[in-house]
Amino acid sequence: MKLVTFAGSLRKDSLNKRLAKGVAQSQGGEFVDLQPLSIPVYDADIETEGIPAGVVTLARFVRAADALIVAGPEYNGTITGVLKNAIDWLSRVKPLPLDSKPILLLSASPGALGGVRSLWHTRQAFEVLGCHVYPGMLGVPKAHEAFDANNSLVDERLRVQLQQLVSAFLAHASKITG
Amino acid sequence: MKLVTFAGSLRKDSLNKRLAKGVAQSQGGEFVDLQPLSIPVYDADIETEGIPAGVVTLARFVRAADALIVAGPEYNGTITGVLKNAIDWLSRVKPLPLDSKPILLLSASPGALGGVRSLWHTRQAFEVLGCHVYPGMLGVPKAHEAFDANNSLVDERLRVQLQQLVSAFLAHASKITG
Amino acid sequence: MKLVTFAGSLRKDSLNKRLAKGVAQSQGGEFVDLQPLSIPVYDADIETEGIPAGVVTLARFVRAADALIVAGPEYNGTITGVLKNAIDWLSRVKPLPLDSKPILLLSASPGALGGVRSLWHTRQAFEVLGCHVYPGMLGVPKAHEAFDANNSLVDERLRVQLQQLVSAFLAHASKITG
Amino acid sequence: MKLVTFAGSLRKDSLNKRLAKGVAQSQGGEFVDLQPLSIPVYDADIETEGIPAGVVTLARFVRAADALIVAGPEYNGTITGVLKNAIDWLSRVKPLPLDSKPILLLSASPGALGGVRSLWHTRQAFEVLGCHVYPGMLGVPKAHEAFDANNSLVDERLRVQLQQLVSAFLAHASKITG
Repeated sequence: MKLVTFAGSLRKDSLNKRLAKGVAQSQGGEFVDLQPLSIPVYDADIETEGIPAGVVTLARFVRAADALIVAGPEYNGTITGVLKNAIDWLSRVKPLPLDSKPILLLSASPGALGGVRSLWHTRQAFEVLGCHVYPGMLGVPKAHEAFDANNSLVDERLRVQLQQLVSAFLAHASKITG
Repeated sequence: MKLVTFAGSLRKDSLNKRLAKGVAQSQGGEFVDLQPLSIPVYDADIETEGIPAGVVTLARFVRAADALIVAGPEYNGTITGVLKNAIDWLSRVKPLPLDSKPILLLSASPGALGGVRSLWHTRQAFEVLGCHVYPGMLGVPKAHEAFDANNSLVDERLRVQLQQLVSAFLAHASKITG
Repeated sequence: MKLVTFAGSLRKDSLNKRLAKGVAQSQGGEFVDLQPLSIPVYDADIETEGIPAGVVTLARFVRAADALIVAGPEYNGTITGVLKNAIDWLSRVKPLPLDSKPILLLSASPGALGGVRSLWHTRQAFEVLGCHVYPGMLGVPKAHEAFDANNSLVDERLRVQLQQLVSAFLAHASKITG
Repeated sequence: MKLVTFAGSLRKDSLNKRLAKGVAQSQGGEFVDLQPLSIPVYDADIETEGIPAGVVTLARFVRAADALIVAGPEYNGTITGVLKNAIDWLSRVKPLPLDSKPILLLSASPGALGGVRSLWHTRQAFEVLGCHVYPGMLGVPKAHEAFDANNSLVDERLRVQLQQLVSAFLAHASKITG
């Protein structure tokens, strides 16, 4: 089962990148960094000149995956423009790379709520595109102090919770895609 | 009362640009085109080098407005990455340009639903930032055949509905900001 | 594979009851009418005296199901109080009858939008409880003229669309629960 | 300015009743308890026999109010069936008692999130009915230990935050309805 993870933010020290990277490492999956892909803001006039190379690359990773884990921060109570923009571009690639993909959503956030509002809006965008978004999700609150040097969660209870969630998700995903 | 309108899409012939432009014209307001502002995808590492010029320009228009009308398409069942990205950048400008602004949301869409799912997610992003989003909204369905050469709605009933909504909104906005 | 269907409205001639009943008939499933169950408005003081009999009955049907299809109208832009109240009661029964259930959501509505806003809020309530809500959904617009005497959809295109959706859902559900 | 408050739960010791009652007391407003109103689960067949007395009473309070404050718990990640059911009934009374009402939403919850998901879905139901829902909201987390004997918040910081929110809301409401 091929697992691909990515994050809905771009900056070098992004907490959600660390979360997505940590999960990929622990499961033998592949982490894709959106930052070097330089995906432009969606503009249909750009699209008529061809799908940008960074989108083509992301689409290839997504299509090859049997399961996706996406970690997205919450900006202003909902999905980030970064992540939504990537999804908007992916929805322009045919055949749809996201169609019927099992996805697990995570969120790391410096605040106390752990990105819970964003997670629910993010579900909707993926579900409209036909993804099977796993019902369980995990928000990591106070994420600026949550990780060790290997992008593993410091808090024992939270780390176990994440491991169990990821395991349950992968078992579920293998039923769907198997 | 100063009215500013803009749209949540970039392409030259955008239906939502036409909607936002048409409303601005009919009300003596100002339409701001996001496309030439070249707002990059949000990246905190870019932000540390300074808020991009296009964001500064948009923030100036928003701050000067007594009322905003935003027309946004629906991509994949929710707010476009384009619009969310602009909001994410605006939320980084201090003091917050959007704080306490009265906003009316519109949506033009080639489909039959008129962007109704997107309108509700878009509310949330603006409301989290302290905007007074007007309860009434209008989705223009089948928008590819909805406008005349002056960006006015062809359909008599829909045109009157839009005029009444805009008038009611502006009367409400003048109470709040007056 | 045992299919159970129910509707999120109570009145005798409910369009959503007809939709849920029609689907059950065509698939050899069982339709449960909530009206005779007389489920009271949730009140924790009632709960301390015991889960009401109607809730116990509904919970038994739900637990026995391998797949659920729920048809809910839209009241005021979101899930009906009727359906939400039934879900709230179900969430008080232990072990959770809804846990991990595959669910397909439908909506019949006399309006043009077919209940699309309600469908998305309804997803959230079921997903919080651990259900696997199928990404595809179907809103039946102008539902007051949509059914024949056997609760089958009159419109050929819509009827085929519903059949294909239900078949795809049941195939998916059998992978999850199988 | 006449302030009316009510809560979206029924049990005698409801935390949200205490929150709504405490705010009413501190502002010289009126608290309406939904429990003795015995509002039935909405059923159009009941409606054809006449709007139930409890709904008529609630509608009278709502119509008389210049401003409403509604405190609702979160059940299963969204609005309670109790509150949605009350709103559904209110929407059947003509002329609409909720139309154009300024509303502030609060939520008390024993959990850590303070009902944040429910608050956003509750906004939508009221906004569809034409209410001006105040952008600021407050979730009271760990609410089982939050109140003193007078239904005032024990925590100094949270109490001041609530007072300021209520004051800002009432000032805003007086602009709209004045």
